[in-house]
Amino acid sequence: MTTVTSTGLALDLLGRHRDRLEAAVSACATREFYAAFDESPSPRVYGETAAADGKAAYDAWLGTDFPLETPGASGTVATERSPFGIDLEVRYPRVTDVDALMAAAQRGMKGWRDAGPGGRTGVCLEILDRLHARVFELANAVQHTSGQAFVMAFQAGGAHALDRALEAIAYAHTEMTRTPATARWEKPGKHPLVMEKTFTVVPRGVALVVGCNTFPTWNSWPGLFASLVTGNPVVVKPHPGAVLPLAITVQVCREVLAEAGFDADLVTLAAEEPHDGLAAELAVRPEVRLVDFTGGNAFGDWLEEHATQAIVFTEKAGVNTVVVDSTDSFRAMCQNLAFSFSLYTGQMCTAPQNVYLPASGILTDEGVKSPAEVAEGIGAAFEKLLGDDARAVELLGGVVNGGVLERLYAAGERGEVLVPSREVTHPAYPDAVVRTPTLIGLDAGEDADVYEQECFGPVAYLISTSSTDVSIELFRDTVQRHGAMTASVYSTSDAVVGDMREAALDAGVALSENLLGGVFVNQSAAYSDFHGTGANPAANASYTDGAYVASRFRIIQSRRHV
Amino acid sequence: MTTVTSTGLALDLLGRHRDRLEAAVSACATREFYAAFDESPSPRVYGETAAADGKAAYDAWLGTDFPLETPGASGTVATERSPFGIDLEVRYPRVTDVDALMAAAQRGMKGWRDAGPGGRTGVCLEILDRLHARVFELANAVQHTSGQAFVMAFQAGGAHALDRALEAIAYAHTEMTRTPATARWEKPGKHPLVMEKTFTVVPRGVALVVGCNTFPTWNSWPGLFASLVTGNPVVVKPHPGAVLPLAITVQVCREVLAEAGFDADLVTLAAEEPHDGLAAELAVRPEVRLVDFTGGNAFGDWLEEHATQAIVFTEKAGVNTVVVDSTDSFRAMCQNLAFSFSLYTGQMCTAPQNVYLPASGILTDEGVKSPAEVAEGIGAAFEKLLGDDARAVELLGGVVNGGVLERLYAAGERGEVLVPSREVTHPAYPDAVVRTPTLIGLDAGEDADVYEQECFGPVAYLISTSSTDVSIELFRDTVQRHGAMTASVYSTSDAVVGDMREAALDAGVALSENLLGGVFVNQSAAYSDFHGTGANPAANASYTDGAYVASRFRIIQSRRHV
Repeated sequence: MTTVTSTGLALDLLGRHRDRLEAAVSACATREFYAAFDESPSPRVYGETAAADGKAAYDAWLGTDFPLETPGASGTVATERSPFGIDLEVRYPRVTDVDALMAAAQRGMKGWRDAGPGGRTGVCLEILDRLHARVFELANAVQHTSGQAFVMAFQAGGAHALDRALEAIAYAHTEMTRTPATARWEKPGKHPLVMEKTFTVVPRGVALVVGCNTFPTWNSWPGLFASLVTGNPVVVKPHPGAVLPLAITVQVCREVLAEAGFDADLVTLAAEEPHDGLAAELAVRPEVRLVDFTGGNAFGDWLEEHATQAIVFTEKAGVNTVVVDSTDSFRAMCQNLAFSFSLYTGQMCTAPQNVYLPASGILTDEGVKSPAEVAEGIGAAFEKLLGDDARAVELLGGVVNGGVLERLYAAGERGEVLVPSREVTHPAYPDAVVRTPTLIGLDAGEDADVYEQECFGPVAYLISTSSTDVSIELFRDTVQRHGAMTASVYSTSDAVVGDMREAALDAGVALSENLLGGVFVNQSAAYSDFHGTGANPAANASYTDGAYVASRFRIIQSRRHV
Repeated sequence: MTTVTSTGLALDLLGRHRDRLEAAVSACATREFYAAFDESPSPRVYGETAAADGKAAYDAWLGTDFPLETPGASGTVATERSPFGIDLEVRYPRVTDVDALMAAAQRGMKGWRDAGPGGRTGVCLEILDRLHARVFELANAVQHTSGQAFVMAFQAGGAHALDRALEAIAYAHTEMTRTPATARWEKPGKHPLVMEKTFTVVPRGVALVVGCNTFPTWNSWPGLFASLVTGNPVVVKPHPGAVLPLAITVQVCREVLAEAGFDADLVTLAAEEPHDGLAAELAVRPEVRLVDFTGGNAFGDWLEEHATQAIVFTEKAGVNTVVVDSTDSFRAMCQNLAFSFSLYTGQMCTAPQNVYLPASGILTDEGVKSPAEVAEGIGAAFEKLLGDDARAVELLGGVVNGGVLERLYAAGERGEVLVPSREVTHPAYPDAVVRTPTLIGLDAGEDADVYEQECFGPVAYLISTSSTDVSIELFRDTVQRHGAMTASVYSTSDAVVGDMREAALDAGVALSENLLGGVFVNQSAAYSDFHGTGANPAANASYTDGAYVASRFRIIQSRRHV
């Protein structure tokens, strides 16, 4: 009776992690601050040897065959090069037989289904715990695939990603358990009817998770765990440039599943050569009923249109917008914006791109500032943040791929270069490709073809409009048509902020107002901030709301007279 | 300030109906018995004149122009003929300008959004109350469009439909309010970060509801109210054969919306000539973001594939299955099955069709019964239920359209006629088309091409298999491939019932076990039984679970430092 034993083990795991689950469920409901995983990589938190041990564990993978069994694989691929200038040369099984992969993925479904919501939740929470134990190793893996600086990789790729995963598990657990496992139904009357009913959560089918290059864990884990905890086997198709963080993830998932008596093939890694087209092949397989995708619009839109046999959750791209009207803290505003442009070289789906401001200037605590003066202010903030190479690289990280560089070079030809980009030399990695952001001046009326497109990377546009009203209208219109993951406004006027809130509701994008301190528009906090809204073309889903989990399983009932 | 007033009025309505909402929310969570609307059309419940008044109100519509304004309409259509033999000759505005309809539908979205979850819920609950006040009129309208007998039309088309609508509203209200409207987020640290956050429910866009001929209210109201209460304007496209019940519905919606200060065009009726193809045109409009459809597989599958800009909820068709293994109440079993075959002439998406039983016979309290003897038993039960024409018509109702008759005639050529259909004369409606069900004997091995297709109407197949194990395997296989809305099993063996439960989980269909009394497989109770599972090809959605409501709206947040 493997199943009974497995379910028992799984429920033990739930018992072990129940407090964490309950805290997460509660935080999702109140949207108050919560973090289950400490974001500080300090030795005081994680111990004196944690950082070195994690680095050593990461280093040990380089140039090796990563020890994962993937059904349907033959041969290996080694596709990763660190933006800091190192070829990883880690070899992963290359999937060539999708039939075999699908068959293997489905083999353990029944046992996993029978573990029930509680058992599956226990196993998934244990996986998070094991991933947390390897968080420094993961941080190095994220750093050297995405190009994030180490501390960011530790936070966004480690602790925060774990919290986003826990959030998804918490939402799914709430959703699965809102219907009782059994119920007694008694219809009154002359001859009362009494029925006993049983409600069972069943999976949809195979889930596909398509990872991205820049946030291999943060953007993949919510979908991975939402699908897994609801009973679905998960095939993880990493970006060829960022395999290792997900290989480690899959390794941990398989290890915990097997230890608890479930089929390890419930989670598999489907690695490929860059042009194998594996994601497109997998996404339209009849066995695949759930797809989670993070990446560019072209393939995201293709998935939404073609993978009609599945429910498709996409996070694509848009034109993130800042409307600047006025501020009572000009320097803090410039500092905040400069930080948002610089963080990870603007290679975030949440990084601001289009800054609309009146050509006549904005009212500030330092007087009226023209667009040129605002550019100067931001330039000065860049200088402060990024003037020193050794400090700059800790904020910028590395340029993730050649496409980003090409867009950066081309941007200067599309408008007036208000602040030029500069090459930064990494003190530790001489081959690292590091650049500061550029600020390009555009005109709202003439340059729509430029600023209506996403320019992913260290390029921001300062766009002169005829008034703040026009800025807000441009914001509403461009986001409705082209999408956005984030928006922000700077204004000392309640009326302007109110208009901007209205426009944000119309455009379907989250709004940050007058950020001046330690919160940045491109950051979102698990359990409190929704990431993406699903209400504009940049994403059809959100981390994490009810819609993100509710359709990943179904309820099957049976009923009988008592 | 129309909006403020409207929202205030709407919240007053919520206050008026709050007890009902809370009772419904609670019943959905416990799955215990609940009914907000009395299913008995008795004068003791509804008053001495209610039935006559309702009939008179219905009669008054015949031959008239139904007083509805539909934007984008020109001219009228009159497309309804009662299965009881009367042309209704009610004229409805015919939609010819979809652009105008879309523009009008969207005009009131902002005010409706701003009413908030509470205000919208109040308005929708008031609409249900007003529909309830017209329940006898609606019952007549349902009777003379669907062909349901009066009591069934009152129950399924009136009281039960209202409960399904309330259920959908309750689920949506729970979903919309699980995220607080505001939250305070405080991140501890050396410099604590404190943010105030606002969360606003926003609609997806225009919702399209495509009604069916047989259950114009029961199958349309859940989607209509789920979409409306979450903030979306709703375009109701009725089946040309069953317009009046939805015209009354739309009239009531518009009346209540307008009284509360909202735009009446938030709910519109889009009537058409039978071959206008309006549903297909509407379903792929970019403004349309939600589609609810009940009807045949061909168009349902088409919608799932082509309306990729929308979220599509379908209830289509399948092969509902009964596995008969053994029983300790042969007569009660035959009676129960015969009732399920007869109710509304088998014209229910939940009516059983395929009865699998061993060719060697089943063990019963009356000894072993061969398939021929089971057919005899069911035939005897038909005789008891339907032997008297005047009583028979109250169970059978009328044949809804010519397609049903054609399938009935053709069925006899596809197998052995074990029980023939018979023409029934309606005592009150001489032109009514009324037929009893036929029972056709098939062989599991030879006749798969017959029983693997839905034969909507009064046709049931008694299918001989080599054993109950084979019956269960056939059930699992045919439902996985062709879908089913219902399944049931008769067995005195715990092992067989257990196997059948497993098969039902695998096939993704709800199971009824050993129904012998006053509960029938084709009936489902709001708040307790899920209708459809979304886990097999017969439907991609369920009335009502979290997935049915969660994706009908999105949450937009804003945040600011405190």
